[in-house]
Amino acid sequence: MYNIDKLFESVAKNGHVCVGLDTAAEYIPTLEKKRSVSDAEAVFEYNRVLIDSTFDVAACYKVQIAYYEEMGINGLTVYAKTLKYIREKGGLVIADIKRGDIADTALRYAKAHFAGDFEADFVTLSPYMGMDSIEPWLTHAGSNGKGAFVLMRTSNKGMRDFEYQELKQGGRLYHIVGNKLAELAGQNTGKYGYGAFGAVVGCTEREEAAEIRKNYSSLFFLIPGYGAQGGAADDAALLLREGNGGVVNASRSILKAWSSELSVSGGDESKADNVFAAQAARRAAIEMRDAIREKTGFNNEK
Amino acid sequence: MYNIDKLFESVAKNGHVCVGLDTAAEYIPTLEKKRSVSDAEAVFEYNRVLIDSTFDVAACYKVQIAYYEEMGINGLTVYAKTLKYIREKGGLVIADIKRGDIADTALRYAKAHFAGDFEADFVTLSPYMGMDSIEPWLTHAGSNGKGAFVLMRTSNKGMRDFEYQELKQGGRLYHIVGNKLAELAGQNTGKYGYGAFGAVVGCTEREEAAEIRKNYSSLFFLIPGYGAQGGAADDAALLLREGNGGVVNASRSILKAWSSELSVSGGDESKADNVFAAQAARRAAIEMRDAIREKTGFNNEK
Repeated sequence: MYNIDKLFESVAKNGHVCVGLDTAAEYIPTLEKKRSVSDAEAVFEYNRVLIDSTFDVAACYKVQIAYYEEMGINGLTVYAKTLKYIREKGGLVIADIKRGDIADTALRYAKAHFAGDFEADFVTLSPYMGMDSIEPWLTHAGSNGKGAFVLMRTSNKGMRDFEYQELKQGGRLYHIVGNKLAELAGQNTGKYGYGAFGAVVGCTEREEAAEIRKNYSSLFFLIPGYGAQGGAADDAALLLREGNGGVVNASRSILKAWSSELSVSGGDESKADNVFAAQAARRAAIEMRDAIREKTGFNNEK
Repeated sequence: MYNIDKLFESVAKNGHVCVGLDTAAEYIPTLEKKRSVSDAEAVFEYNRVLIDSTFDVAACYKVQIAYYEEMGINGLTVYAKTLKYIREKGGLVIADIKRGDIADTALRYAKAHFAGDFEADFVTLSPYMGMDSIEPWLTHAGSNGKGAFVLMRTSNKGMRDFEYQELKQGGRLYHIVGNKLAELAGQNTGKYGYGAFGAVVGCTEREEAAEIRKNYSSLFFLIPGYGAQGGAADDAALLLREGNGGVVNASRSILKAWSSELSVSGGDESKADNVFAAQAARRAAIEMRDAIREKTGFNNEK
């Protein structure tokens, strides 16, 4: 069974929210940081309570490795522990690593992120170097169901520089990335009709969303850009298909929900702890889940 | 002083060879692996002796992080030790990490790879997401001279999939990547006329090399594709400028020079040790250095 099938089932059960654990130490209540022997330890504890509190309202988790590399070896130890914690609990985790390298190197990376200390269920990949930088990862889809989301049309402003370039042959660069991914998906299709490898498509460009969803119906989408980057529930819903086919990532709005709630209520931030942060994170995830579900116009609880 | 200036001076002194430490455990003599408590330790020892033996004949070192990530936390500890060893010896090291992510994340990555456990002198970056994924790294060029090489036209076959796409506006995708990098270079020019951030240009496509060198004269090139991937000294020389302006990477031909020598001489591989491997690596690096110098038709020892 492909992990993409497990993700489909998780979306049907828990909704579309992908909780992004881009956990910077400054997102954690000060009280808790003081209790910890190190920032790295505080980050792991924070991740743990947030995973516990959001587990039944999250489709999956996405861990952005940059926030852990920033803390060096100790940070990567916490990265490894976080992935392990999610997987041992039975959750699905996307390693947001955006790798893209020549085939020999891709095989090394695949071993690094689909096995051992850093084993994840999915990775993110960058396609610039071409399909021979993507295909080697697929050997792990066949052998143990692993999946990937390949950058297609991202949610940042800079995506207009290259991804958006109009090609002589017609269409834009991101279209031919999508075409190549759809070809791959045709060779590795899971039981719900989605390829083992999906695509990253941001929900920040409303006008193209419906067209992208229609043209790449076999690609499951990892959808960034919700919240802070400007995407709303109805933008995200345009990238879903029959109430499934995508997960919508939110990081800061969930990680810092405790702080947002306190700034609305006028509460004292210095008294906030992980218990409150975990509850606030759960409330934020539920609110997001319900907002997206409402806009899909599709009952997931069939 | 930008690191790119230091690299220019290192090329003038030591030649163009960038020794690629893509050190897989299987490249190390069996005898030495048996002596080590772990593969990770064997890799560090091997790196150490090769760095020592090639130090005055290498422009710089490039460490491909995938080969270390593959060994998990222990591998990344060896990665950090290798970078530190090169830098404390006064050498220059390129972290081959090919990162490319949204601006907030790019700042985290820059902190991870331009400071702390994983501090390198240069990194490699992938441009797919656009210039807002590249520019945040530049803050470290101004503050501490750090440099980067951004993927432009790589040496793998798959580069034809996207990098080579002809654009509606004229030219290919890699040209506009180069144009954007040349713009950046104009804002951060070192004392030898090269931008703080250069480009990765493979030496596998002979016909375009002279044109690329001419059109992007402010970009210092990191040149992969030499040896195993088909590039020769005269191909690489086409990407150099007045005997400088680029470093040519070689990994396996240097790391496994001991094995290549023994297969020619019919020697016994089981008796090979690090002393022999280090001497063979030095011979391979010198041979490559001289072959490229000869083809540049320019006397570096001015």
